[in-house]
Amino acid sequence: MRTDMLWSGWGDPAEATALGPEVGDLLREALGVKAPTPALSREEVRLADSRLEDSARERLGAVTGEEHLREDADSRLLHTRGKSMPDLLRIRSGQTDDAPDAVLLPGSHEEVLELLRVCGEDRIAVVPFGGGTSVVGGLEPRRAGFAAVVALDLRRLDRLLELDEVSRTATFEPGLRGPDAERLLGERGYTIGHHPQSFLFATIGGFAAARSSGQASAGYGRFDERVVGLRIATPRGTVDLGRAPKSAAGPDLRQLFLGSEGAFGVITAVRVEVRPAPPVCIYEGWRFASFADGVAALRRLIQDGPVPTVLRLSDEAETALNLARPQDFGAGNAGGCLGIAGYEGTEEDVEARRDGAADVLRELGAELDAEAGESWERGRYKGPYLRDALLDAGALAETLETTTFWSGLDGLYASVGGALRETLTRLGTPPVVLCHISHVYPSGASLYFTVGAAQLEDPLAQWRAAKAAANDAIIAAGGSITHHHGVGTDHREHFAQEIGDLGVETLRAVKATLDPDGILNPGVLIG
Amino acid sequence: MRTDMLWSGWGDPAEATALGPEVGDLLREALGVKAPTPALSREEVRLADSRLEDSARERLGAVTGEEHLREDADSRLLHTRGKSMPDLLRIRSGQTDDAPDAVLLPGSHEEVLELLRVCGEDRIAVVPFGGGTSVVGGLEPRRAGFAAVVALDLRRLDRLLELDEVSRTATFEPGLRGPDAERLLGERGYTIGHHPQSFLFATIGGFAAARSSGQASAGYGRFDERVVGLRIATPRGTVDLGRAPKSAAGPDLRQLFLGSEGAFGVITAVRVEVRPAPPVCIYEGWRFASFADGVAALRRLIQDGPVPTVLRLSDEAETALNLARPQDFGAGNAGGCLGIAGYEGTEEDVEARRDGAADVLRELGAELDAEAGESWERGRYKGPYLRDALLDAGALAETLETTTFWSGLDGLYASVGGALRETLTRLGTPPVVLCHISHVYPSGASLYFTVGAAQLEDPLAQWRAAKAAANDAIIAAGGSITHHHGVGTDHREHFAQEIGDLGVETLRAVKATLDPDGILNPGVLIG
Repeated sequence: MRTDMLWSGWGDPAEATALGPEVGDLLREALGVKAPTPALSREEVRLADSRLEDSARERLGAVTGEEHLREDADSRLLHTRGKSMPDLLRIRSGQTDDAPDAVLLPGSHEEVLELLRVCGEDRIAVVPFGGGTSVVGGLEPRRAGFAAVVALDLRRLDRLLELDEVSRTATFEPGLRGPDAERLLGERGYTIGHHPQSFLFATIGGFAAARSSGQASAGYGRFDERVVGLRIATPRGTVDLGRAPKSAAGPDLRQLFLGSEGAFGVITAVRVEVRPAPPVCIYEGWRFASFADGVAALRRLIQDGPVPTVLRLSDEAETALNLARPQDFGAGNAGGCLGIAGYEGTEEDVEARRDGAADVLRELGAELDAEAGESWERGRYKGPYLRDALLDAGALAETLETTTFWSGLDGLYASVGGALRETLTRLGTPPVVLCHISHVYPSGASLYFTVGAAQLEDPLAQWRAAKAAANDAIIAAGGSITHHHGVGTDHREHFAQEIGDLGVETLRAVKATLDPDGILNPGVLIG
Repeated sequence: MRTDMLWSGWGDPAEATALGPEVGDLLREALGVKAPTPALSREEVRLADSRLEDSARERLGAVTGEEHLREDADSRLLHTRGKSMPDLLRIRSGQTDDAPDAVLLPGSHEEVLELLRVCGEDRIAVVPFGGGTSVVGGLEPRRAGFAAVVALDLRRLDRLLELDEVSRTATFEPGLRGPDAERLLGERGYTIGHHPQSFLFATIGGFAAARSSGQASAGYGRFDERVVGLRIATPRGTVDLGRAPKSAAGPDLRQLFLGSEGAFGVITAVRVEVRPAPPVCIYEGWRFASFADGVAALRRLIQDGPVPTVLRLSDEAETALNLARPQDFGAGNAGGCLGIAGYEGTEEDVEARRDGAADVLRELGAELDAEAGESWERGRYKGPYLRDALLDAGALAETLETTTFWSGLDGLYASVGGALRETLTRLGTPPVVLCHISHVYPSGASLYFTVGAAQLEDPLAQWRAAKAAANDAIIAAGGSITHHHGVGTDHREHFAQEIGDLGVETLRAVKATLDPDGILNPGVLIG
């Protein structure tokens, strides 16, 4: 039985994190947090009536079967927006104006095609819905001009369609969550190796549609790099792509649907490269004297090898927080920086890479901190639960990420961190800004920022100001507006700056071809 | 000084290959080749007058400078079509109807933009021209509806714009040939590591525009995988892409221009990942009892490692020819199959991978044949010269390639080889069909076929029949119509079958956005 996520926050309510009293002290002392700001109770939250017309209900229900068209308040609430802090702030305070009018649960590719046809005829906007874990407003379509909005929840498309052990690929339907896909593969001895922080709730289709990147991307690659085939249902019909891992047959159209965030079509099958499940998994911490030293070490490993499977590095502030030494906040590099190097593979492979990387890291002055690796592993999916607790406690807590080439990383780090600190300080809420390198490539890396501050009376406006400053700083510093969260609606304007007017026009032309009525996730990705 | 390629064949005339008398015997005995079929002499070849109007000549010359607009017969002849066997058969017999009316040599991105603007106004079709090495009709635009056709030769855009040693990327203008780009990098200690058979003459821009794949792709990746940034001049203006190696900012638009073959814009800068030039390069041969054994070994190495830098495998027939044992043709697996494993890197890295791979290969029954590796290295760029000699001698000689997933490789191999043999045998010219695996991926591989047969009176029609049968077989067997040669005009119809009607419509929409007058390589890639 699939556990629905909490309507007002992240994940499984049974896993909710409680903040210890020492964190409460920290919030008051370091951030000036005052009173708790709890969410409304479910009973206090009201939804407007569904705007779905009877004729549409009949036609859509005839496609899915009536039991798979849901208009009850709980279903609609659970499909309202995603899980960004702005999404949560709004839903916690009872703002449900964005609730879809209905939730459709198709059972096949053909049903998806047929639903899109009906929705096109009836001017109904369609929000493809996988895990509902978007943190960039990817589930918040523009409603103007549409008779209704429906969420297209793909959870019933949950099969492993094929495991090709010779080619080492697996073809999945889109609705499987990370652990379900891994379980099906694990029974046969394989893994995708894709473990983003959203792993427990995000889906195969979402990983593809939003170009997800997992914590072990150094070793396994990003999800988009592992996708070799896609089937897409569009309002115009089916697109099947991927006759080979790589080809010179024109532009790679798979790369047009990867990252399309449901705006061009609904991904109904994903063929992805798999690997034998690793018998050995080891994660270790390494301490560096400074962030700069750590950056140099990560760059050396990813460029010259040996390459760990997991490779991450926290800056001084994040290290201090992770090590529960809040007194080091802002104390320069007193506590140094903590990196994580993980190895997954056969015993022989892990030993060779681990020994080789250890030699490099020691040569560069790093010190092993084995326990920190285990601690990272235990907490690797817990961040979003902590955020919920912080929101309850009266704090803002949000993350954002960007990426650029190694030569621009220092500038990007300073500039985005500076923009966040300056904006929130100017608003009277000096923040804590933490950062880590979450993903590395031979030519560049990502920066993942976490921001904490006391909530002002209008926390939404407060965060929007900070986020806008960060977005501007990213574009000005030459970075990409997102590394793995996606564009959604939150990043749409800065995405347009990133690819330029002709880039936007090109994507609009693609959308107009595949979705001529513009019913698919209107306003997401492009305007 | 840049050496122009021979007008009637491949490469530097000084490097032309002469066939030994034993090959002449072989051609007569094995293929039934009769009389030599030499090319016309240069003096016998005539070109129609340029159709460029005076006003257009004046406007275009004003952009480039008059000396960079060429209408002399030699310049036009050197830009007529590419280097496929059909291209050569036609030009060798004096068919010059496809000669461009003029050759333009812009000196900057801005000049390219301005030329496109003028050509749009004057309805002049533009063929972007790098090395002129297309073997798929990529330089043969549809002329109907255009006042004239010009070749846009990018050779003057020949600078290394930036070497970013921290990010390990180099930004090149498009007109540099392989050896020139490698020389500029080599002076600084770096390499791209991209060495397709066309390396000596093909250009950086062409590598990107046609998704080139080098002989060392197992170690360095394909060229398209190494490209992290692109600047493109389109008739509508400039597109700049690539703020990071990878990003979740929407569809990856770089992947729309990679493989666009000049139909969407002219690539004027390419940022590509580089590596330290390897101090050690070793290439070794390995003998397998059968092609099936060799395929299993290549798959094992690319899936489980260690991964050599170069990894190739000839089938029994190609092995027999390579080893100059023509008596083995068609004798089943008497001579077995020869694979090549190469290693480039530091001494330590090469030793580790070489020893590890040798263990795997021996375990799988392969035997080392060190000399065969050196022999492969000596001949790695020579195939096209040999083809010219064979065409002179009265033979057909051509190559084609395809790719699919490992599980489909046997079927694709049998089906394409079968189609070639059946068609040419039916025409009365039983062929020799050779094949090798030229590129490997964890989930699939490419198949590169070489075909030799006696020329019939109309060798063009003869080859077209064989090629059409091979193309149909590729699509029917689920393969991609090309692995690294590209689409051009020759593969356009089968490319459309590969991506489907909606895929084609999508690409047409992209083209209509960026090239509304349709002047860029009309008819190439999409109809």
